[in-house]
Amino acid sequence: MWGGRFAGGPSAIMREINASIPFDKALWRHDIAGSRAHVAMLGAQGIVSGEDARAIDEGLQTIAAEYERNGVPEDWDLEDIHMTVEARLTELIGPVAGRLHTARSRNDQVATDFVLWVRDACIRAENALKGLMQALLARAEEHAGSVMPGFTHLQTAQPVTLGHHLMAYFEMFTRDRSRFADARDRMALCPLGSAALAGTGFPIDRQATASALGFDGPTRNSLDTVSDRDFALEFLHAASTCAIHLSRLAEEMVLWASQPFGFVRLPDTLSTGSSIMPQKKNPDAAELVRGHAGRIIGCATSLMITMKGLPLAYSKDMQDDKPPVFEAAGLLDLSLAAMTGMIADSTFQTPRMRAAAEAGFATATDLADWLVREAGIPFREAHHITGAAVKLAEERGLALDALPLDELKAIDDRINARVFDALSVDASVAARSSYGGTAPDQVRARVAEGRKMLGTGE
Amino acid sequence: MWGGRFAGGPSAIMREINASIPFDKALWRHDIAGSRAHVAMLGAQGIVSGEDARAIDEGLQTIAAEYERNGVPEDWDLEDIHMTVEARLTELIGPVAGRLHTARSRNDQVATDFVLWVRDACIRAENALKGLMQALLARAEEHAGSVMPGFTHLQTAQPVTLGHHLMAYFEMFTRDRSRFADARDRMALCPLGSAALAGTGFPIDRQATASALGFDGPTRNSLDTVSDRDFALEFLHAASTCAIHLSRLAEEMVLWASQPFGFVRLPDTLSTGSSIMPQKKNPDAAELVRGHAGRIIGCATSLMITMKGLPLAYSKDMQDDKPPVFEAAGLLDLSLAAMTGMIADSTFQTPRMRAAAEAGFATATDLADWLVREAGIPFREAHHITGAAVKLAEERGLALDALPLDELKAIDDRINARVFDALSVDASVAARSSYGGTAPDQVRARVAEGRKMLGTGE
Amino acid sequence: MWGGRFAGGPSAIMREINASIPFDKALWRHDIAGSRAHVAMLGAQGIVSGEDARAIDEGLQTIAAEYERNGVPEDWDLEDIHMTVEARLTELIGPVAGRLHTARSRNDQVATDFVLWVRDACIRAENALKGLMQALLARAEEHAGSVMPGFTHLQTAQPVTLGHHLMAYFEMFTRDRSRFADARDRMALCPLGSAALAGTGFPIDRQATASALGFDGPTRNSLDTVSDRDFALEFLHAASTCAIHLSRLAEEMVLWASQPFGFVRLPDTLSTGSSIMPQKKNPDAAELVRGHAGRIIGCATSLMITMKGLPLAYSKDMQDDKPPVFEAAGLLDLSLAAMTGMIADSTFQTPRMRAAAEAGFATATDLADWLVREAGIPFREAHHITGAAVKLAEERGLALDALPLDELKAIDDRINARVFDALSVDASVAARSSYGGTAPDQVRARVAEGRKMLGTGE
Amino acid sequence: MWGGRFAGGPSAIMREINASIPFDKALWRHDIAGSRAHVAMLGAQGIVSGEDARAIDEGLQTIAAEYERNGVPEDWDLEDIHMTVEARLTELIGPVAGRLHTARSRNDQVATDFVLWVRDACIRAENALKGLMQALLARAEEHAGSVMPGFTHLQTAQPVTLGHHLMAYFEMFTRDRSRFADARDRMALCPLGSAALAGTGFPIDRQATASALGFDGPTRNSLDTVSDRDFALEFLHAASTCAIHLSRLAEEMVLWASQPFGFVRLPDTLSTGSSIMPQKKNPDAAELVRGHAGRIIGCATSLMITMKGLPLAYSKDMQDDKPPVFEAAGLLDLSLAAMTGMIADSTFQTPRMRAAAEAGFATATDLADWLVREAGIPFREAHHITGAAVKLAEERGLALDALPLDELKAIDDRINARVFDALSVDASVAARSSYGGTAPDQVRARVAEGRKMLGTGE
Repeated sequence: MWGGRFAGGPSAIMREINASIPFDKALWRHDIAGSRAHVAMLGAQGIVSGEDARAIDEGLQTIAAEYERNGVPEDWDLEDIHMTVEARLTELIGPVAGRLHTARSRNDQVATDFVLWVRDACIRAENALKGLMQALLARAEEHAGSVMPGFTHLQTAQPVTLGHHLMAYFEMFTRDRSRFADARDRMALCPLGSAALAGTGFPIDRQATASALGFDGPTRNSLDTVSDRDFALEFLHAASTCAIHLSRLAEEMVLWASQPFGFVRLPDTLSTGSSIMPQKKNPDAAELVRGHAGRIIGCATSLMITMKGLPLAYSKDMQDDKPPVFEAAGLLDLSLAAMTGMIADSTFQTPRMRAAAEAGFATATDLADWLVREAGIPFREAHHITGAAVKLAEERGLALDALPLDELKAIDDRINARVFDALSVDASVAARSSYGGTAPDQVRARVAEGRKMLGTGE
Repeated sequence: MWGGRFAGGPSAIMREINASIPFDKALWRHDIAGSRAHVAMLGAQGIVSGEDARAIDEGLQTIAAEYERNGVPEDWDLEDIHMTVEARLTELIGPVAGRLHTARSRNDQVATDFVLWVRDACIRAENALKGLMQALLARAEEHAGSVMPGFTHLQTAQPVTLGHHLMAYFEMFTRDRSRFADARDRMALCPLGSAALAGTGFPIDRQATASALGFDGPTRNSLDTVSDRDFALEFLHAASTCAIHLSRLAEEMVLWASQPFGFVRLPDTLSTGSSIMPQKKNPDAAELVRGHAGRIIGCATSLMITMKGLPLAYSKDMQDDKPPVFEAAGLLDLSLAAMTGMIADSTFQTPRMRAAAEAGFATATDLADWLVREAGIPFREAHHITGAAVKLAEERGLALDALPLDELKAIDDRINARVFDALSVDASVAARSSYGGTAPDQVRARVAEGRKMLGTGE
Repeated sequence: MWGGRFAGGPSAIMREINASIPFDKALWRHDIAGSRAHVAMLGAQGIVSGEDARAIDEGLQTIAAEYERNGVPEDWDLEDIHMTVEARLTELIGPVAGRLHTARSRNDQVATDFVLWVRDACIRAENALKGLMQALLARAEEHAGSVMPGFTHLQTAQPVTLGHHLMAYFEMFTRDRSRFADARDRMALCPLGSAALAGTGFPIDRQATASALGFDGPTRNSLDTVSDRDFALEFLHAASTCAIHLSRLAEEMVLWASQPFGFVRLPDTLSTGSSIMPQKKNPDAAELVRGHAGRIIGCATSLMITMKGLPLAYSKDMQDDKPPVFEAAGLLDLSLAAMTGMIADSTFQTPRMRAAAEAGFATATDLADWLVREAGIPFREAHHITGAAVKLAEERGLALDALPLDELKAIDDRINARVFDALSVDASVAARSSYGGTAPDQVRARVAEGRKMLGTGE
Repeated sequence: MWGGRFAGGPSAIMREINASIPFDKALWRHDIAGSRAHVAMLGAQGIVSGEDARAIDEGLQTIAAEYERNGVPEDWDLEDIHMTVEARLTELIGPVAGRLHTARSRNDQVATDFVLWVRDACIRAENALKGLMQALLARAEEHAGSVMPGFTHLQTAQPVTLGHHLMAYFEMFTRDRSRFADARDRMALCPLGSAALAGTGFPIDRQATASALGFDGPTRNSLDTVSDRDFALEFLHAASTCAIHLSRLAEEMVLWASQPFGFVRLPDTLSTGSSIMPQKKNPDAAELVRGHAGRIIGCATSLMITMKGLPLAYSKDMQDDKPPVFEAAGLLDLSLAAMTGMIADSTFQTPRMRAAAEAGFATATDLADWLVREAGIPFREAHHITGAAVKLAEERGLALDALPLDELKAIDDRINARVFDALSVDASVAARSSYGGTAPDQVRARVAEGRKMLGTGE
């Protein structure tokens, strides 16, 4: 492939370290699509004859059918998917295959293949997120009024509704979808035609190949194009943030499934048992989602490190772009699918949740707010009074709303019997009806908006 | 501040590990702005009296003037900027200060302060990028026709123009600006009013505070809001990618300033000497830009790790969100400023660049392309023929275009005298006039478009 | 400082990006110690006169006293701690100060300062670990027989003792101490005398300066020495692993302090309350330890990125070595101190732990093991039988050891009354007396060994 | 495998996310070795009969032979290598296979397999490092006197010898070997017998299995043992630092092979050409070594993130420990082999190196040192004088030692003709004979010591 200037072939170690075919064969569909677009354009521009263009295109279709059927052969001597396809094309149609590489280089070719692949991975993530968000909407509506303890610092803080809690994740995944979409918008320009680094003197039509491959137009600087992996970084960044959200939800699933919490029963189909402890039902899928987040972040870190400080244009270090992207995309696909199953099929133990909310003085803030509202006390002072009430309740082993009124009055005589209306967990959540608050009506309104936004209507 | 349930105060180590005032005092402007918006709304809604609202607002303005003049005091017992401001407010106006904290919590307060700060950091980055891009446009136009070797694998590949090379970075920074802008778009919703985690029962007007602080509207889920640091992650991701680009440019500045390259003289104002080697002029600013990229990526990694797997809602781990963001933003500001100076004030050694382009057989691809174009030879075969010509030139110690025609013909007799028109570096760059290619006309067209896009006219 | 080849001074941005004095002033003690060792050697070797050496040494002592009293002044024009000290020395003793820099460079000087600082940080970590380990030993002994549920996948797995659980961390910290010690062993060679990069022609005595500064001897290659930051990386790696252990323990503290677990009451001195929720007692110190782990790993990542791919010898990127090391060391110091307080002063809620161990079928494995041992059933079959027993107990809402014998016999008639001896949590932990197992006697034996290993007697 | 408590099998997504057999089949040798040691001990202790133990052992040997011949089958339903082996054993020898899992769990089993694998990876790295170090010694001795420019900030600083430069890497790799060895020392304790988390009640002999598998003894705490992945982290940390060194050397190979430097011709066997530019010879192997460092650091980051904050004991997240370790180890193996080939077989272009050293005023420090030594001038003043001389030489376009004596005297009249003895590059390197300096004699002495240290004699 390199002409006659090399005295000997590569050493065994070189063949192994250099070969990317073991992983870049994943690009075969995009590679053949790119080549077909390229040769069609070469034909249309008269750079190769119509006959040659047809022969090449038919050869490429034959290869696509072969790969679809039998997979892509891995021959380290052919280095990568590009040479693998071209070598097979030469076998099939002879030396005319050599015309395919006119006015392009592996540098713009791999950039095209890879950005097409990453664009597809974004679309896959957006679709999977939509499925997960629909599952969240359904469960949030179902549990718009189910009371559970809201935690901060993992301490019982205030009662919230399970629907509200689930909708928090809906918001996160909404942002994730929008990040993947923005990333795709920045993948709208086609690398093909940048050639090795400087463009080409052949009268190519870059708009034509761009359109054929679903891009808005060609990239604007050939040197940048063959040196750029921003699209891969941006995918990895969006994937990392999404994985962090999935990991937070998985953490809660693991916590909630533990015996001390007992807030959820995960579906059997997404749990495993133990080879030694017969009573176990382990939240493996949730733990793997959490673990995968670590690996996805590691993949993002890896590519950032590899790209940092590389001079222009293409350097071979950039071959190490694909393993982390392929790995992260695969882990993200699995994590989204597993989490969608967990959300859809888990059984929330709402009585246990309610009981936990009722323990733990979760309505103490409601008492403080009542003092501000009803007795006009500055919040900071109300906070102090409430602290004393909590201390008393703790000592007496009672819930706040079980404290006798006279004992409350002994703490501050501005307290009266109406306070008890504020201290139940249902009153507490119903009261928090500020926009975006935990009140069931707020949750239902957000669910309705969410459905509309997803375009899945009622 | 926490009421009477705590037997003793914090230990010395607790005061130290817990205090965020040493770094979060950077938020003071945003904290006071947020409080002013909040109290104005409380007054308008009748939650506090007009008189109290005015007293609080005046107190806050007094504090702002004090901090502007003397800086923010650091008292670890006051923990953070929020308590520092409130404690001072109480000193100034007495217990009425306590009404300010009605219907909010430090959780939504810090989220508001921080997103405002990060939004400003995005704007700062976008503006600094604009300045750097203008510098690139000016130098690219100046050197639209200056020939230099284009490298791949740091090996001389094909001649390119310096203007084309500089415009590659213009493209990268265009994408960076667009990422910061997209990140800002996702910071358009105001956290204030989410309270501790569940919203509030006070009749607040979240749209009002959102508008007063320059947001489009309020956030949609209070639990998400106080648990969310996506905006900080997205800033760090955009900053990391931008830093990677700066690091690549810095790497080239270091390379080009080295004696073996000799492509650039960096400005004295951005270089240093040596305490021991009197002849040295070191590209310190470029090296620090490259080093800072490592730290910025480290900051992004740090916050991803911290957020991964945290259950909802606010956990104190999230206090570790600010140091990496403040550090990365500061390093990015410095790096952008230093790089703008380097681009604007460096002296490119164009004769040396041209000489390097003329050595090294950089026009070998032009020979191959000529064979395809003029003699109708398939590219792969043309590549072989050219390889033989390069080998001959190397053995003879000659440039490609200095080889005698008959020796070229001996390699392949389809070669004729017209080939020499294609083998000069000027011919080579002029020929690469495909869209986005290195030809001077292409570079000038891209510069003109870039000016238009930046809105900086001619 | 750089002599007369520079036309102008540095620009404002250069002064700011270049100045390391804001952070490297932390090195002042080591810088002065290194200079005193160097000048003593120069005097002894006759490279400077005895009189000059004395004058310089006295000047350095004066400066040390000044810094001890008033701190180190920050003048960006003096760039770093080395020039700051030398400039002050010149003020104090005049031009003879210039002889101090004979036969050395800032490159070997900063390497010496920094390795001395990192060595101290290792010693600090080792000592703090020892304190934490002693606290663990004391609490483990106290709770050698306290039964709690052992978790895998955060599911109740088998009963363990709290002492055993705490001793798991003792093992982790034992390894951490040994890693810091190994790292220090690799910091045994002194950089001083490597000069800028190539060594020096002055007849210096590197063994003398090495000994004076507590090193075993001089480094072996001057180019490596000024380019090397392995010692800082190794510290950061050891700190990261240690922080991961602290984060795991902190995670458990947070979990155990939550209302659903209720396994521990953290000391008031290491907790905080809430500005809005009066009932809260938040495990802030534990959360910050967990958060700090993220930042420490970020620091390690940062320096790995910075060093990767730098050519020899010193590059200015390496100035970005200190901020992450200083930050990580400070965070580790705080984390170790806070965790030692938490271990020493927390109140373990042992009745709650025991109750949790008794729920959840934690002794199911004991039933399976009993079937193997007493009835000679292969383990896999015993596991199946036990699974059926657990299912029955779950349906009946009973603990395993509350199932009637005849119902157990109905599952497998090889079960007899002796089985109940195996099914209590106390029997379960006592039985697991294999070396390193959870049996109280094993725990006490390990505690005794641990005391011996730490050299802290009984 | 989990008994009868699960209503249904795992879902398709669960089978896929849960299966580790696609990667943990790499552990098969260690898994079978561990099982053989375990069953031999069970037999010796009378926990299983001698007959059963023999049957199991023979079955395991049969399986080993099968895997050696045909590879390990991948059946997702069998999840992992442990169940894969056990299922095959049951096919071969019937239900007696079930006795193998007595007194152990997959938790201690996988810890044992994995630590054995990592120990082997350390040994592989140590051996490969030894080979690379021998190659460095050979080339350093060959080039002990070859002069080249020493760089700081990639600016010509002082002349050094190529031998000295290569020996800098020898030092780095010496430290790397010692880190791998220390890591192995901390892998000296055997996990087997820790069972699920709590140890076991069977009368096992952990010392026996430990010895059989080449460990010093058993681990000391069963909970720690099944929760611990320090050994994997420590391997990844040592691998990261080693990869950073390899990346630095690779960076220099890439730089040196560039046309502007021209310091080295890399072997054809470790280079590639271009599909489009026939003249190219690309340093792909070096670039891949540099790229692989990014991925190895990413792997280390990944596992640190995964382990941070996991409560005890085993969590399924820990299944994500193996992919990064396997990936990093494979990349390190390849990188070390490729670099050894590059060092052994590259052709250093010493005339070009010498010419570069002679340009660039590299001996300016020698002039300053001469002024200190011969004229008793304080170093700082000598530095100033030299700066003026360099400026003059630059203006005159001459090398320092080509300046006429009277012009030097005009700068400072303490300069005399003897100065020229100090200004040649050979004099410069010969003079730097301080311990560890660049003088050829120092280099040869270090090479001799290095040979002795490696135990490879003369």
